[in-house]
Amino acid sequence: MRIFTLDTTLRDGTQGEAVSFSVDDKLAIAQKLDELGIDYIEGGWPGSNPKDKDFFERARSLSWKHAKLTAFGSTRFAKNPVHLDRNVLALVEAGTPAISIFGKSWDLHTSRALGISQEENLKLISETVRHLKDHGKEVIYDAEHFFDGYQANPDFALRTLEAAHQAGADVLCLCDTNGGTLTGRLVEIVAEVRRRFDGVLGIHPHNDSDVAVANAVAAVEAGCTHVQGCFNGYGERCGNANLCSIIANLELKLGHTVIGPEKLYGLSNVARYISELANLPLRNDQPYVGKSAFAHKGGVHVSAVLKDSSTYEHVKPELVGNRQRVLVSDLSGRGNILYKLKQHGISDRLSEEARRELLERIKQMEYQGFELEAAEGTFELLVRDALNPGLQFFTVESYEVSTRMTSGNGETRSTATVTLETKDGVHSATASAHGPVHALDLCLRRCLSPLYPEIANVRLTDYKVRVLEPRRGTAAKVRVHVEWSDHRRSWATVGVSDNVIEASWSALVDAIRLELMRLMERDDSIERAVEDYCWGV
Amino acid sequence: MRIFTLDTTLRDGTQGEAVSFSVDDKLAIAQKLDELGIDYIEGGWPGSNPKDKDFFERARSLSWKHAKLTAFGSTRFAKNPVHLDRNVLALVEAGTPAISIFGKSWDLHTSRALGISQEENLKLISETVRHLKDHGKEVIYDAEHFFDGYQANPDFALRTLEAAHQAGADVLCLCDTNGGTLTGRLVEIVAEVRRRFDGVLGIHPHNDSDVAVANAVAAVEAGCTHVQGCFNGYGERCGNANLCSIIANLELKLGHTVIGPEKLYGLSNVARYISELANLPLRNDQPYVGKSAFAHKGGVHVSAVLKDSSTYEHVKPELVGNRQRVLVSDLSGRGNILYKLKQHGISDRLSEEARRELLERIKQMEYQGFELEAAEGTFELLVRDALNPGLQFFTVESYEVSTRMTSGNGETRSTATVTLETKDGVHSATASAHGPVHALDLCLRRCLSPLYPEIANVRLTDYKVRVLEPRRGTAAKVRVHVEWSDHRRSWATVGVSDNVIEASWSALVDAIRLELMRLMERDDSIERAVEDYCWGV
Repeated sequence: MRIFTLDTTLRDGTQGEAVSFSVDDKLAIAQKLDELGIDYIEGGWPGSNPKDKDFFERARSLSWKHAKLTAFGSTRFAKNPVHLDRNVLALVEAGTPAISIFGKSWDLHTSRALGISQEENLKLISETVRHLKDHGKEVIYDAEHFFDGYQANPDFALRTLEAAHQAGADVLCLCDTNGGTLTGRLVEIVAEVRRRFDGVLGIHPHNDSDVAVANAVAAVEAGCTHVQGCFNGYGERCGNANLCSIIANLELKLGHTVIGPEKLYGLSNVARYISELANLPLRNDQPYVGKSAFAHKGGVHVSAVLKDSSTYEHVKPELVGNRQRVLVSDLSGRGNILYKLKQHGISDRLSEEARRELLERIKQMEYQGFELEAAEGTFELLVRDALNPGLQFFTVESYEVSTRMTSGNGETRSTATVTLETKDGVHSATASAHGPVHALDLCLRRCLSPLYPEIANVRLTDYKVRVLEPRRGTAAKVRVHVEWSDHRRSWATVGVSDNVIEASWSALVDAIRLELMRLMERDDSIERAVEDYCWGV
Repeated sequence: MRIFTLDTTLRDGTQGEAVSFSVDDKLAIAQKLDELGIDYIEGGWPGSNPKDKDFFERARSLSWKHAKLTAFGSTRFAKNPVHLDRNVLALVEAGTPAISIFGKSWDLHTSRALGISQEENLKLISETVRHLKDHGKEVIYDAEHFFDGYQANPDFALRTLEAAHQAGADVLCLCDTNGGTLTGRLVEIVAEVRRRFDGVLGIHPHNDSDVAVANAVAAVEAGCTHVQGCFNGYGERCGNANLCSIIANLELKLGHTVIGPEKLYGLSNVARYISELANLPLRNDQPYVGKSAFAHKGGVHVSAVLKDSSTYEHVKPELVGNRQRVLVSDLSGRGNILYKLKQHGISDRLSEEARRELLERIKQMEYQGFELEAAEGTFELLVRDALNPGLQFFTVESYEVSTRMTSGNGETRSTATVTLETKDGVHSATASAHGPVHALDLCLRRCLSPLYPEIANVRLTDYKVRVLEPRRGTAAKVRVHVEWSDHRRSWATVGVSDNVIEASWSALVDAIRLELMRLMERDDSIERAVEDYCWGV
């Protein structure tokens, strides 16, 4: 059966304690979700938040392949006529094809939070839904606290659904807002609602009882065909139902069509992408998409899995774009690199000696704290270096960067000087900038751009620093992870050092060298091998 | 109903990728679990692992209040008579009152992994169970891959249970070893087994489909009275079912007796204790016990929860030893800050003017990109500054830090010079170090330690950088988040700047100023208010 998904990472997800996205982040994520085949992307609450309003304005100029952008808001305020309610007006102005609005289903909320009568509440729901329908919108009615409300006063809860249904809501979505409903009870209630209403029923579970994904799946088994959740289970308190797991379960376990098998392959990639933008590491043990999801450590498991992977794997990791890992030692990991390079015919182009050196170098770098799996740029550079031994576009003679603040003007400035040797001689440049990495970047480009003007296209898009040995205080070793883009694609390079400037410089130099290597030798097989290694086959 | 728990954090939990315990850790955790009222503590696999053997030897000299220590192993090897099988001998020698052994329920495994006939497999099970019963042990029979086995060949799977049952097993535990079974199907199978067997049925779910806790709870609803899981959901791949969530769900939602309401209060504490020993941060969003499990961020939620906490909390956090937190990041948040300060009588000590200025300053800082929620140190400093206007321990005249690399020795060194003015004059210091932040830190301490030797106790424990405006490339604004400790407690300060050095410097200076403020004025009400704000009430 076709099951529809509404992703609310950009709305409910941002209510998670550590989750915060810029408007740029939100637009980038929405585009990714669109590519993945998500049906509705709930982008924010235009009536409550200027940032979300801005998001919808900017989203209009983008093209959407599949998804319907969805604005979120509440039913009208009790004191406002619907056509003058600011929140409702903002919803319409957001210009999205679909709108989700939430209303109260729990008598406790109607009396306590809103302080209105039950009849008045039904009127808010009915008038708001009808107003939005009159404006040509597809309306998803979110019945907030439906399960708590049903258990407290089933008659009232059902009447709120009836009000939305009668007013023309396209989806009646049952929300377990507090996440307190266990699966058995939830299924009974969904089945009861299914008996009473035709049309599309939705489910919106939260994870406070640690059963949100099970609740979503069980609700589908009980008749829901619209599922709401967040990528990586982000969301207020314990998070929303994890949409990655739901999609995979529905597609692979229950035979439903959600995004389809081809797009399912992108699931791990999108989960990682979103976690990067959120700057929250993807949980290693996250089902389906985590780094450990198909990682085998126990001796019994490892030997069995090498004979037949179905002995200890519930699905084939490739189906969701993840891969099997065997944690016996890092040796197997390097064996795996070699296997990938072989697959793409690259390993044949390396001598026995070069292959050994490449593996040795990777081993050394991993030992030093590089995480090459998350730095496809640095990994690609290593492979290209091995294929083109001795190819140095430039050597760094010296660099120096100084940052100075005086109380006179209170301003901080960084000044850098870089000296490089290229094939046409020694080049020096000095530049001043707001920050030290920026100053170094300017110098590097000034030295190289006369010879290689193409490097102007490569830009830093993100920069992150983590301490590797927290116990050593300010003397600790750090890893700098830098993301780059040339407007066509993006990649990351990594530097590790006990000096944050040196680690940044090393990531900077790697990015520029990689771009020069690519320009010199357009070799798709290398890019494919790197992609396989970094994102799994 | 009384439901029994078997915790396998110390056995199955350690198969998690990042989980590793010393024997001391294991003994300490086992004692905590015993105090909490866990019924069976599966300590390890004495036949496969010398560390686990050592654990059981040392455990004998400890006293156990409630729990039965349980040794884990497999049925005898096909080639060994049971009384000569080393694994079975090691199980008996472990000296535990209970033993759990796993046998094969899936014909795929019998033929592929063991390479024996189905009849032979039944003999392994039956003989091993009987041997252990003859030695006076309570025997928990773990039917490995029971659900996969049942779906592949129900007759064979049921016969393996029958063999264990006939041989006297005290518990028949149904394992979803690969974690691939969805809740609906699992319940059907448990119910079928329940119809066929009397005695204690157990459930042992894994989380590969993200439904392990739901599966455990649903299995209890279908007739299991013995539940196996790991604290914090540790375990191979995606982990075992999270025992914290299971216990809380069964006690608070289904009215069963597991550890009882008094001990339930210790749940959050034990979860944190175990995560500390595992050196894995407790997930903030972990249901029931995580720091964010009862944290409210959305404006609508905050105002409702302040009226009546049941509006957005599924259970009272105190029941599991956790607490409510109200997070602040927008306008509602600033109202909340004031509320917190009022509660602790601090707001009364501020003039109307000072209060307005404090709120304005917080608003400005948030606008600039500070995240005060995650920087209790910076927030505390703001409050202390407002209470002690004009109290400057030092002013920064200037600082400069230079990082230099030359290809001669290839080494990177940073050298800093800092000039401060304190009450006894102007102080300058120059220092060289591996990194620029380290060099600045050294200078700052050299300038101040003659006057304030106590600052030697404050140490950096973690350092993170993230870019706030990725699009601006190397010129982007960054936020530096630094964690500090004085061996008594830890806190964080934040710096925001378009210069990574300046942002780090500002976080550094804040940390030192805060420590001086604290030394000057031991004022518990401030610490309590800050704690309330940053960690919740």
